[in-house]
Amino acid sequence: MTLNEALEKLKALELKQYAFNFAMSSISLDAVTVAPKDTAPGRGKALGILSEEDYKILANPETGELLAFLDEERKKGNLPAQEAREVELLKRDYDQMSRIPMDEYVAYQVLLNDADDAWHKAKDASDFAMFEPYLEKIVAYNIKFAGYYDPEKAPYDALLNEFERGATMEMLDAYFAELRNEIVPLLKATREKPQVRCDFTSRPCAIPKQRELSEYVMGLMGLGKDHVAIGETEHPFTLHFNKNDVRITTHYFENAMVSSMFSVIHEGGHALYERGVDDCYLYTRLASGVSMGVHESQSRFYENIVGRSRAFTGFLFPKLVELFPEAMEGVTPEEFYKAVNMAEPSLIRTEADELTYSLHVMVRYEIEKQLIGGTLAVKDVPATWNRLYKEYLGVDVPDDKHGCLQDSHWSGGAFGYFPSYSLGSAYGAQLLRVMEKDFDVWGEVAKGNLAPVTEWLRERIHRYGCLYNPTPLMEQAWGGKFDPTAYTEYLKQKYTDIYDL
Amino acid sequence: MTLNEALEKLKALELKQYAFNFAMSSISLDAVTVAPKDTAPGRGKALGILSEEDYKILANPETGELLAFLDEERKKGNLPAQEAREVELLKRDYDQMSRIPMDEYVAYQVLLNDADDAWHKAKDASDFAMFEPYLEKIVAYNIKFAGYYDPEKAPYDALLNEFERGATMEMLDAYFAELRNEIVPLLKATREKPQVRCDFTSRPCAIPKQRELSEYVMGLMGLGKDHVAIGETEHPFTLHFNKNDVRITTHYFENAMVSSMFSVIHEGGHALYERGVDDCYLYTRLASGVSMGVHESQSRFYENIVGRSRAFTGFLFPKLVELFPEAMEGVTPEEFYKAVNMAEPSLIRTEADELTYSLHVMVRYEIEKQLIGGTLAVKDVPATWNRLYKEYLGVDVPDDKHGCLQDSHWSGGAFGYFPSYSLGSAYGAQLLRVMEKDFDVWGEVAKGNLAPVTEWLRERIHRYGCLYNPTPLMEQAWGGKFDPTAYTEYLKQKYTDIYDL
Repeated sequence: MTLNEALEKLKALELKQYAFNFAMSSISLDAVTVAPKDTAPGRGKALGILSEEDYKILANPETGELLAFLDEERKKGNLPAQEAREVELLKRDYDQMSRIPMDEYVAYQVLLNDADDAWHKAKDASDFAMFEPYLEKIVAYNIKFAGYYDPEKAPYDALLNEFERGATMEMLDAYFAELRNEIVPLLKATREKPQVRCDFTSRPCAIPKQRELSEYVMGLMGLGKDHVAIGETEHPFTLHFNKNDVRITTHYFENAMVSSMFSVIHEGGHALYERGVDDCYLYTRLASGVSMGVHESQSRFYENIVGRSRAFTGFLFPKLVELFPEAMEGVTPEEFYKAVNMAEPSLIRTEADELTYSLHVMVRYEIEKQLIGGTLAVKDVPATWNRLYKEYLGVDVPDDKHGCLQDSHWSGGAFGYFPSYSLGSAYGAQLLRVMEKDFDVWGEVAKGNLAPVTEWLRERIHRYGCLYNPTPLMEQAWGGKFDPTAYTEYLKQKYTDIYDL
Repeated sequence: MTLNEALEKLKALELKQYAFNFAMSSISLDAVTVAPKDTAPGRGKALGILSEEDYKILANPETGELLAFLDEERKKGNLPAQEAREVELLKRDYDQMSRIPMDEYVAYQVLLNDADDAWHKAKDASDFAMFEPYLEKIVAYNIKFAGYYDPEKAPYDALLNEFERGATMEMLDAYFAELRNEIVPLLKATREKPQVRCDFTSRPCAIPKQRELSEYVMGLMGLGKDHVAIGETEHPFTLHFNKNDVRITTHYFENAMVSSMFSVIHEGGHALYERGVDDCYLYTRLASGVSMGVHESQSRFYENIVGRSRAFTGFLFPKLVELFPEAMEGVTPEEFYKAVNMAEPSLIRTEADELTYSLHVMVRYEIEKQLIGGTLAVKDVPATWNRLYKEYLGVDVPDDKHGCLQDSHWSGGAFGYFPSYSLGSAYGAQLLRVMEKDFDVWGEVAKGNLAPVTEWLRERIHRYGCLYNPTPLMEQAWGGKFDPTAYTEYLKQKYTDIYDL
């Protein structure tokens, strides 16, 4: 095999992975958007076969030889930077994947399909017991897979590493402890001050008008209809078939317009990241955001740092008055700004304000750590959840629907994902520090001009796709090491101002 | 290889085909329902790879050996009826497919993906020239593929045979000549009589209310939301992932409520056929309707024979008044019945009445016959189309959008499909003859009770899937040979009554 032949085979391998990923994404998107209700069995059958084929693309001796050959060339410095990185990541995928027996891999994919269905039904019925047997199996698989991913790590560390390379329980324990130390007193201080006005945020807003708002906001963000579509699902998410075909979803509630608005901005942030990856990575292993933490740093940057800023809400305000004249009647821009930043212990993570958000994440982190560590039984999840919500946030969880069944992550097998939401917030606050030195961020945002923000992020983050690991990528953008005080200081400054602390 | 081993491999082969078909259907459905506009290239890339893999499932030496072995066993009478038929059809697929070189097969799939996009754009712009280069290539591929399907047949006969086993140009020339002889004078006679009232059919009907009507009609037809969903596309169609997961689509126009209503009933007829196939055929080669002609016999039976009957329109009338009080103001049930059956030469096939419908089909049949026969150049399609519309229907075609770009079939490569619409109508009329002897069809339909009709059809047609070829299947249901006079007599009787001839 010549080097050129091997590189050609590499591209063919990546293209095949792209095609299977496209197919399975399409089926999954259909499942949560328009598929009829009782169709999971037939879909599961198809997904089972497709995952088996997908598994075989990577985990077969011929691919193993190809990647071993190319990895040697890489180490000798004979590959261009892009192909070197493709080989590095694929070799890693191969090593991990080939440790997972095929029947386990396929059975797991089928389980996830069934579990998604079971989770929806359990959530509707607010009955954890309906989901429990699925979660039992998903946890067991994750513990087993953690051993395949990295047998030398503690299982939960191995899983964390899948979502954020380098994240560990040791690092996160310290990070979350620091956050708690800063956030809890800050939250307490805001509770002792006069509360901000929020009566109008639950006023009814017609859903067709909310859909119009989504399109308007996507337009502001530069997410044109030629390459980005929006759908409606239980739980909002972003899916990219490729950088030129990105889908976001949201969920409209008549009495919670602000909720869908910020979910669209959040998912729009994910979409911008995918849209911004350089064309040269199209259809390759590098053609997507590099990690969940970095991805969340982009989505939460748009949602919170930009979206919930006084500059942006002020710019948006006249549009809201135009679309929802009754809901906005007698509301000032400043009242709107404060309302969407109201700090309040609550039940639902996706609805949480910036200040309490990381406390919601900590609940999940604690539970995952213990589930995967084997110190918590699945059947005890609801009780533990409810206890931790009381302890961290001071709220009583009334039922599973508003408790441990609220998120789709566990039914999707994503253990180790949650911490990246909080890390993403911290990454983003540190990016803001640098961005503010480079140009007049708030002056542009106040004009509704988000292009310079996106351009700045594209230049430093988006364009590279998976070319660099998260740490060097972010350190280059920050001009230094990770520093969570950027996040805590950002929160302190923002909430001191809002609550006049 | 023991027989049991071979039968296990057969089931695995069918399951794999099912999964790939599921994947490609999902991608295609997404493409025409919710995908952003400029996403064809990335989708084409994925579909190209998937069709290549799908091709390899069937067209490889190992499958060839398996099917040859099983086909021998079939001929010896060693297979149960179901498996014998599965092998017979798969062997036929294999023989055809393995004659198509893989690169041609894949290139054709990619071409169809691009052509669909080009057709949409050309139709929007009403500019055949934008679609012409794609159609050139599609015609060339179809001529070549016809030779692979059956090198002994004339190319267009080979293509016809793919949609309706046994159909030939000789048979269709005679069939269409007979229809023309009966329909043209009948149409002429109706034109000489006072015309039926139709002013109200273009009155505006709010699209959300039309969506409600679709759901109501689907409910009447027994198409529950657990297994059937409805979407919106340029051109209505039915797609089944499996018998428990069926999708239909329609297109709403504010000023043409009746149009979407009948398209839903039409596609609902297709859906009922798929829903009615016996469970034992699930995930096998037999798990779908047997041919396009038989499929259209079901959809057109519901759309026209049932849907456009005095009994059904009379039953539906109060619901229409409830949903569209303004549009239905001052209209009697009898006027509504006559309006939806108004015979009038027109431009658009899918909007055509029962009487003129087959004339629209004949235009397409003539053009296809000549394109595939090599006696008509693609560039001359618009002129020929317009000439034949003038000749058969007496209408002037104003532009390509209302002319040769109106249907999606050619962009989808479906040459030989159109005649099955007309054959389906004739098949259906002959079924009605028998059904009327068995029970009081119109008494039940007048009560909105379609279940006995569906039950009757399920018992005789739906349940068998692909177990029998179209001819024996239909002959058994008819209790005799195909007799087009059932169709012409049905039309004569219906239109003599409506126009008081």
